[in-house]
Amino acid sequence: MNGAESLVRTLVGGGVDVCFANPGTSEMHFVAALDRVEGMRCVLGLFEGVVTGAADGYARMSEKPAATLLHLGPGLANGLANIHNANKASSPMINIVGDHATYHRKYDAPLTSDIEGLARPSSHWVKTSPDAKSIAADGAAAIAAARTLPGQIATLILPADTAWNDGASPAPVPAVAGPKPVSGEAITEAARALRSGEPCLILLTGRALRQDGLELAGKIAAKTGARLMAQGSNARTQRGRGRVFLERVPYVVDQATKVLAGFKHIILVGTKMPVAFFAYPNKPSLLAPADAQGHLLARLDEDMIGALGALSEEVDALRTPVPVTNTPAPSKASGRITPEALGASLAALLPENAIVVDEAVTTGRGFFAPTCAAAPHDWLSNMGGSIGLGMPLATGAAVACPDRKVITLEGDGSAMYTLQALWTQAREGLDVTTLLFSNRSYQILKGELANVGAGNPGRKALDMLDLDNPDLDFVALAKGMGVPGARVTDMEAFNRRLAEGIATPGPYLVEIVC
Amino acid sequence: MNGAESLVRTLVGGGVDVCFANPGTSEMHFVAALDRVEGMRCVLGLFEGVVTGAADGYARMSEKPAATLLHLGPGLANGLANIHNANKASSPMINIVGDHATYHRKYDAPLTSDIEGLARPSSHWVKTSPDAKSIAADGAAAIAAARTLPGQIATLILPADTAWNDGASPAPVPAVAGPKPVSGEAITEAARALRSGEPCLILLTGRALRQDGLELAGKIAAKTGARLMAQGSNARTQRGRGRVFLERVPYVVDQATKVLAGFKHIILVGTKMPVAFFAYPNKPSLLAPADAQGHLLARLDEDMIGALGALSEEVDALRTPVPVTNTPAPSKASGRITPEALGASLAALLPENAIVVDEAVTTGRGFFAPTCAAAPHDWLSNMGGSIGLGMPLATGAAVACPDRKVITLEGDGSAMYTLQALWTQAREGLDVTTLLFSNRSYQILKGELANVGAGNPGRKALDMLDLDNPDLDFVALAKGMGVPGARVTDMEAFNRRLAEGIATPGPYLVEIVC
Repeated sequence: MNGAESLVRTLVGGGVDVCFANPGTSEMHFVAALDRVEGMRCVLGLFEGVVTGAADGYARMSEKPAATLLHLGPGLANGLANIHNANKASSPMINIVGDHATYHRKYDAPLTSDIEGLARPSSHWVKTSPDAKSIAADGAAAIAAARTLPGQIATLILPADTAWNDGASPAPVPAVAGPKPVSGEAITEAARALRSGEPCLILLTGRALRQDGLELAGKIAAKTGARLMAQGSNARTQRGRGRVFLERVPYVVDQATKVLAGFKHIILVGTKMPVAFFAYPNKPSLLAPADAQGHLLARLDEDMIGALGALSEEVDALRTPVPVTNTPAPSKASGRITPEALGASLAALLPENAIVVDEAVTTGRGFFAPTCAAAPHDWLSNMGGSIGLGMPLATGAAVACPDRKVITLEGDGSAMYTLQALWTQAREGLDVTTLLFSNRSYQILKGELANVGAGNPGRKALDMLDLDNPDLDFVALAKGMGVPGARVTDMEAFNRRLAEGIATPGPYLVEIVC
Repeated sequence: MNGAESLVRTLVGGGVDVCFANPGTSEMHFVAALDRVEGMRCVLGLFEGVVTGAADGYARMSEKPAATLLHLGPGLANGLANIHNANKASSPMINIVGDHATYHRKYDAPLTSDIEGLARPSSHWVKTSPDAKSIAADGAAAIAAARTLPGQIATLILPADTAWNDGASPAPVPAVAGPKPVSGEAITEAARALRSGEPCLILLTGRALRQDGLELAGKIAAKTGARLMAQGSNARTQRGRGRVFLERVPYVVDQATKVLAGFKHIILVGTKMPVAFFAYPNKPSLLAPADAQGHLLARLDEDMIGALGALSEEVDALRTPVPVTNTPAPSKASGRITPEALGASLAALLPENAIVVDEAVTTGRGFFAPTCAAAPHDWLSNMGGSIGLGMPLATGAAVACPDRKVITLEGDGSAMYTLQALWTQAREGLDVTTLLFSNRSYQILKGELANVGAGNPGRKALDMLDLDNPDLDFVALAKGMGVPGARVTDMEAFNRRLAEGIATPGPYLVEIVC
């Protein structure tokens, strides 16, 4: 058994049974080993940003790491933006990066680069496996590193000769600690704040945004009069009809400071005190009032559910009814396409148990509120702010959950970074409907230009923000990658095409000109 | 004048008048400054790999750096693969990477990352500008760093507040040294090898591959009986009818060792001793015979043309006629599409003074030989081995040379990394004809799988190498980005469509199913 096979067997033995890949020469032994090892599903992406974003989506939905297979430093580099996003989302991921044979590196062949240097900024764990006998144990250590809570990025560099020389037996994965228990003091402090009679916010993210966590948090809020909110972006939120109603901190600084005004206490559940996405001249970086006190209930790697349980007991909320959303089911909108109309129709048509991937940036900013009344679903956001995550994330989520419909809310600007994800969706027959909001500009930047006080843009500045001239034709682009689609320019057509996408298994794209 | 404007004025004053850009919020002041400063052409790319690859192509053809404008760490990361390629090609480049405002970084907002860490592996010069007053001088230093021979990557990180606070006056660019003179010993040693009577190879790259360098090298070879060869990949080679005939070291190890067998001396002009692109089990890393002696005539940052002049004088070749290609002009091929037929038709139809960008990987491997008899042209290759360079490189070359036809030879696998370049070609009306060779697989990897001894691939391995299921439709993809195109399946159609692309100004794509 060569090193590559010992690694693949270690991965499968350690429960890592999906590999998103864009391999090259130095990874050929790994690829060949796939034929000899049962139990590893390998999914090809035509660009590495698709590969790493899909691994993120897979991890968020399956709660375990996928492997990625990348080709030397430049292959890793192409995947780094979505590794950055995965890192910020605390998604576990195991990147396997091929390298030149150990003895070949000194000759500085064209693809030679400092792979460890490239990996380090977004990886918690980086190792170059020194020889074929070590690769199984290194692979097992990478799995353990990725699984370390709250979820980490492990990057294992695999020189070609460590893949083709004789390897050792597959290695068992070292034990990984479960979530750390939260101290009694943290519970007591939070309870004291909740009982203070002063305005109090419970701010959640991470594992606390699943149904169990939200039900506990909802009871606490209902019992104590505290307000419940998620941070601006979250890896995965369970919401919709019959679930706990939840706001989130707005992106726009002025809106965020307004929403947070008046709070004296913020109970932090996996979060830190809310921070502006960007700095703007004469606007604050910290969004909460200066006199608001933060109370850390649980960190991301701590037992958030246990802490919420203990806190609900402490404030005597265990028997408080869960405050669920019971807004009437929304109705489809008609007529002209507006963000509000789209939000209403999306809420009305969203199928039960859908996975919504949100990278709609400007057009979709208002979709969160109306969809609280939609059928129960999971909502996945971009936590690292590097656009180009949406379609890859949807791809990975669909691989993890073949029985659930995935709906991607995608802006046209964001879509163009990693459009190749559509091809993988077509090849794998993934059940993803992409709603492509085509406002033909980096619309968010037009707002940001004003927000940063850069004045009214002239022709040259506008040319950097507009995506027209020529217009992108997303139906043609989707067709080019084997995905059927349609363009809509009014709400009736939108409703019809979205329903069609939902009813049809496999990938489908609706371009919404708005 | 704010910091951003002082930087733009410094760039324009320093001769940097093209900026390839994919900006975000933190770069809005730079974008706004474009409206206030005359003389900077800003070209939008929809993905950062397009931006950096275009800057490489621009630098190769204009012999001066372009600026790139990138959005924080992930924006830089998306551009790194083509920065790697530019680095290996010794192309000068100035990357301007926006960052959070200095005071905002400590809050670890979503887009926060270690930008310097990401930049370092492929940059010769990295600096974060500390304040708005420094940015002009830092920009000038970045220009000087980029221009340092043989051409360097300079990465200047621009925190948002250094852009919006009050800046200093534009700064002048420090003097940059010209090429270093070559020592008399190097000339003498090379001359001694050439006169030794033993088989001798002159191996060239870089500046030596322009017409003046090749004519000198050709005379030396003609006079002394040495053989003339370029290394495997080169930034820019001037060739065709009436120019010096030149082979190159083959990619495939067995072919390369065969071509290099028997040489006792290798005169290195900008090159090192030839190295295999990848390592393979039981094949050498070094391609020349073990007893071949290398003689360094000139390094890349030395005066290669001066050295070749001195050497031609030393071996008394100054009056030797230049050995030019006088093969008869090739004829168009007909019938079935084969690599040989494509090479012949390409050679027959290539217009005078064209710029050929070569990323055709497998299909195009044989195109170099027949095109030595084509009309005079420049040939640009990928020197870093990270595929996804071709179409961006062509984009930048076309911006640099608006009066020349650019022909991109592009493999389907490579094309899918940075397909967004087509949109920039459409927007800017760039005169680029893309020949897209669609063999519907990572064909090179099928060969490499055998080369590394990984055995016969089974279904799962083949799935990682095949690009069918579904087939990519490049005519639809081009249409989606505003570029007209046609698909051809025989040589008659290829000849017609290539002629059409050449005759039509602006971008055009021919998908060749092969």
